[in-house]
Amino acid sequence: MTRDDRAAAAGADSDPHERVPDGRLHGDLPVTDAAAAAEHVPDDAAMLVSGFGSVGYPKAVPRALADAAHAGRDLSLSVVSGGSVGGDIDEALVEADAVARRYPFQAREAVNAAINDGRVAFADRHISSLGDDVRFGGLVDTDDSVAVIEAVAVGPDWLVPSTSIGLTHAFVEAADAVIVEVNADQPLALSAFHDVCRSGTPPERDPVPLSAPDERVGGPRIGFDAGKLRAVVETTGRDAPYEFRDPTDVDLRIADHLGDFLEREVRRSRLFEESLRVQFGVGSLGNALMGALGDADLGDRDLIYYGEVLQDGLLDLLDAGALRSASATSLALSTEGQRRLFEDAERYAESVVLRPGDVSNAPALVDRFGVVAVNSAVEVDLYGHVNSTCLGGSRMVGGVGGSGDFTRNAPLSVVALGSTAAGGDVSTVVPKASHVDHTEHDVDAVITEYGVADLRGTSPRERARRLVDCAHPDYRGDLRAYLDRAGEGGGHEPVDLDTAFDWTDRA
Amino acid sequence: MTRDDRAAAAGADSDPHERVPDGRLHGDLPVTDAAAAAEHVPDDAAMLVSGFGSVGYPKAVPRALADAAHAGRDLSLSVVSGGSVGGDIDEALVEADAVARRYPFQAREAVNAAINDGRVAFADRHISSLGDDVRFGGLVDTDDSVAVIEAVAVGPDWLVPSTSIGLTHAFVEAADAVIVEVNADQPLALSAFHDVCRSGTPPERDPVPLSAPDERVGGPRIGFDAGKLRAVVETTGRDAPYEFRDPTDVDLRIADHLGDFLEREVRRSRLFEESLRVQFGVGSLGNALMGALGDADLGDRDLIYYGEVLQDGLLDLLDAGALRSASATSLALSTEGQRRLFEDAERYAESVVLRPGDVSNAPALVDRFGVVAVNSAVEVDLYGHVNSTCLGGSRMVGGVGGSGDFTRNAPLSVVALGSTAAGGDVSTVVPKASHVDHTEHDVDAVITEYGVADLRGTSPRERARRLVDCAHPDYRGDLRAYLDRAGEGGGHEPVDLDTAFDWTDRA
Repeated sequence: MTRDDRAAAAGADSDPHERVPDGRLHGDLPVTDAAAAAEHVPDDAAMLVSGFGSVGYPKAVPRALADAAHAGRDLSLSVVSGGSVGGDIDEALVEADAVARRYPFQAREAVNAAINDGRVAFADRHISSLGDDVRFGGLVDTDDSVAVIEAVAVGPDWLVPSTSIGLTHAFVEAADAVIVEVNADQPLALSAFHDVCRSGTPPERDPVPLSAPDERVGGPRIGFDAGKLRAVVETTGRDAPYEFRDPTDVDLRIADHLGDFLEREVRRSRLFEESLRVQFGVGSLGNALMGALGDADLGDRDLIYYGEVLQDGLLDLLDAGALRSASATSLALSTEGQRRLFEDAERYAESVVLRPGDVSNAPALVDRFGVVAVNSAVEVDLYGHVNSTCLGGSRMVGGVGGSGDFTRNAPLSVVALGSTAAGGDVSTVVPKASHVDHTEHDVDAVITEYGVADLRGTSPRERARRLVDCAHPDYRGDLRAYLDRAGEGGGHEPVDLDTAFDWTDRA
Repeated sequence: MTRDDRAAAAGADSDPHERVPDGRLHGDLPVTDAAAAAEHVPDDAAMLVSGFGSVGYPKAVPRALADAAHAGRDLSLSVVSGGSVGGDIDEALVEADAVARRYPFQAREAVNAAINDGRVAFADRHISSLGDDVRFGGLVDTDDSVAVIEAVAVGPDWLVPSTSIGLTHAFVEAADAVIVEVNADQPLALSAFHDVCRSGTPPERDPVPLSAPDERVGGPRIGFDAGKLRAVVETTGRDAPYEFRDPTDVDLRIADHLGDFLEREVRRSRLFEESLRVQFGVGSLGNALMGALGDADLGDRDLIYYGEVLQDGLLDLLDAGALRSASATSLALSTEGQRRLFEDAERYAESVVLRPGDVSNAPALVDRFGVVAVNSAVEVDLYGHVNSTCLGGSRMVGGVGGSGDFTRNAPLSVVALGSTAAGGDVSTVVPKASHVDHTEHDVDAVITEYGVADLRGTSPRERARRLVDCAHPDYRGDLRAYLDRAGEGGGHEPVDLDTAFDWTDRA
């Protein structure tokens, strides 16, 4: 298949070789202001917003809706995003009491608090399947739904996303109406990163036509039915992206163990004969691990990133020549990272590609490309069950995001986390996970600053011994005492249900 | 793509149009007896056996190994199968104390007891990824490994599987040596069911080249390196398959609710405009649900089965003209069902196809074909977390099998189970699952004999109310009291860790 054949097979929205014309507004468009655009959002709409990794989300229309709510408009929105978004949505709208439901991932205190209070109904879903959750009507009622999308350019039946793609393509397809914010502070040069391809919907979905992690098969545009376009709003304003802390000593020790583990694996398995494909979860630890991977001795193997977010650590690797390419759905960079990227967009676009979130996270591609998944967690239990979302089993901290897409489908799935939390007061290696997001069936290795627990091929009893050795020394005795108690009851996976949660914070 | 192109793209092991020549032994083969063949299995080998759904497993060589163990040979085997196998392996070998490790699914009391006692180390893995688990060396050491495969015909570098395919193709690829049992009691006509295709291995795996659930793209043969063939043993003996109980009143009420639910869904969602593709889990309930689905009013939609096992209920649907086609990896029929199928193999093969287990269960295909997954469980909790494997959180009853492959990737995932177990003494709707195999992120609806809890788009609090309504009336009061206690602690997913397992059997 040639590149053109593939693009045709993908039903790409535009010719991959065709650049977006200069300028941001193309053709006859219903340009208006944010307040007027907000009136196109019904009071109880499903509002499907762009944004992923806290970048590329609409800013003005959500603000206008929040203002309207404060002025007395009675809003009860179901807000659906591809991933996390900024405060214009997850703070302003929530504080205006305008959000009744929120799917499937968020990372801001205001909305988190509302979810934990039960004021906002939240359902936590995998990124890779969210497009279909919306398309087929199981998640929200798409009648009266409105997609509100940030773009760098727009035409009568297409748009070019800004700093993330996420599920925008599915949202404009499923929604009844489309509103586009064209943000003059997001460089038009971002179009060089986007590779939008489609492969249809079940039951006649084609395979995603990618044959390599760095291949391009689509173009920068997302198409939609021209009859849906209700409003175009010209905006300004930067994303409010993640800010990463500097790597801690614990982060660096975890990174060392991960590097050693991967050095052994690339030599052991024919899966890695020519290259190592990796994904890292969002966050400061993930960012630190990305950065540190440049020090690993991979022989002459190429290092390739196939994940959902591009974080600053990957820019460092690219600049150092240690990373061949990076594929993601979001430029989830710090403010400084965005500046670096924007200043040199054309050069970075040679090795960085942004894809739809159901391509970046596609179970089939994670499998076919043999991606090594590295994700963090709240806690991991002695049998390899992982809690990624709920403190104390109940208090949501964000959502499962794409961690399940990668952990479940990668041929090698690593969970990396510091052995303690809350300043050392809590062991993250626990008798029994208080909430389970990833099961023992999916996790191959756990890495803390104390070492690597390789769980592959092990029985639960064997796993427990390896995991105790990765726990903080202060907690190993108590964990062994728990295992002794649990062992009295026998069973494949011994548990002592009476004391399994003795350590879990009830606050 | 034509069928021939697809077969070529698939790297099919033989021309799909070429029938297997008459006769069972082809070419110059190392024919020997089972005892001699057993000597080719090293004492501590990884023994990779055919078999899935308790059919198509080798019988004579495992028996010979058990005999040798009883006679003093010190065996410490790691036994890996695609799915469940018969007593020749999971009883005879285990009772001879010859099995040290066992992966990834089993369903016989002898091995279950040994696993729960800790005498046999068991790791529970998904079927779809087991081929790669074995190929890439993470699960077992494939040096000194031996594939022991039941076939209906064999040549110097190929074999035709018998009543199941399972992971046989991956096992003969990964193993150091191959032993084939050619079973004269398994009809040669079984070759008409097999559609073996390959799509390579990561990082350059191609998409599985199927574009429809009933398509054929391969042929009946599994190829292997001729230098690996150590022994061919001529055997006789029938499978010892599952025996299904007659549907109970509870089964039939669950089937009614499922039928009603699917009737509504096919009218609601464009996913089902032309057909309904379904998968049912192994077991008496699954079998009863399959049979009862013929009564549902699907309009003029075709009913298509895309699952891992063909059970008797599907034969009834085929005979009644209510099922267009069935795709699976195992003919997991009762003895009577096997008789029906064997007597009329050519006719059934027009609408039944057997595939490799990593094709029948491929996450990508479950997604692309839009399969509705219907699986049973041990228990389900108030937030939709599902325990499929461990009674009381610890005592293994079989394994996760393919339930995760389907539940995780289906656009509509149903868990169907009776509301009580142990003769009514235990509620299967519980405050907190004592073991989690499928998470809230993957389960769309729960059906008991009391109704349907549609969990899509619901917050945990909302889910709990719907699930209480599906619990047995005797337990609803206690469940509501639990929810009241849990609610006092707040949080997105309220739990009361002190009493969450008060109901769970400790025995």
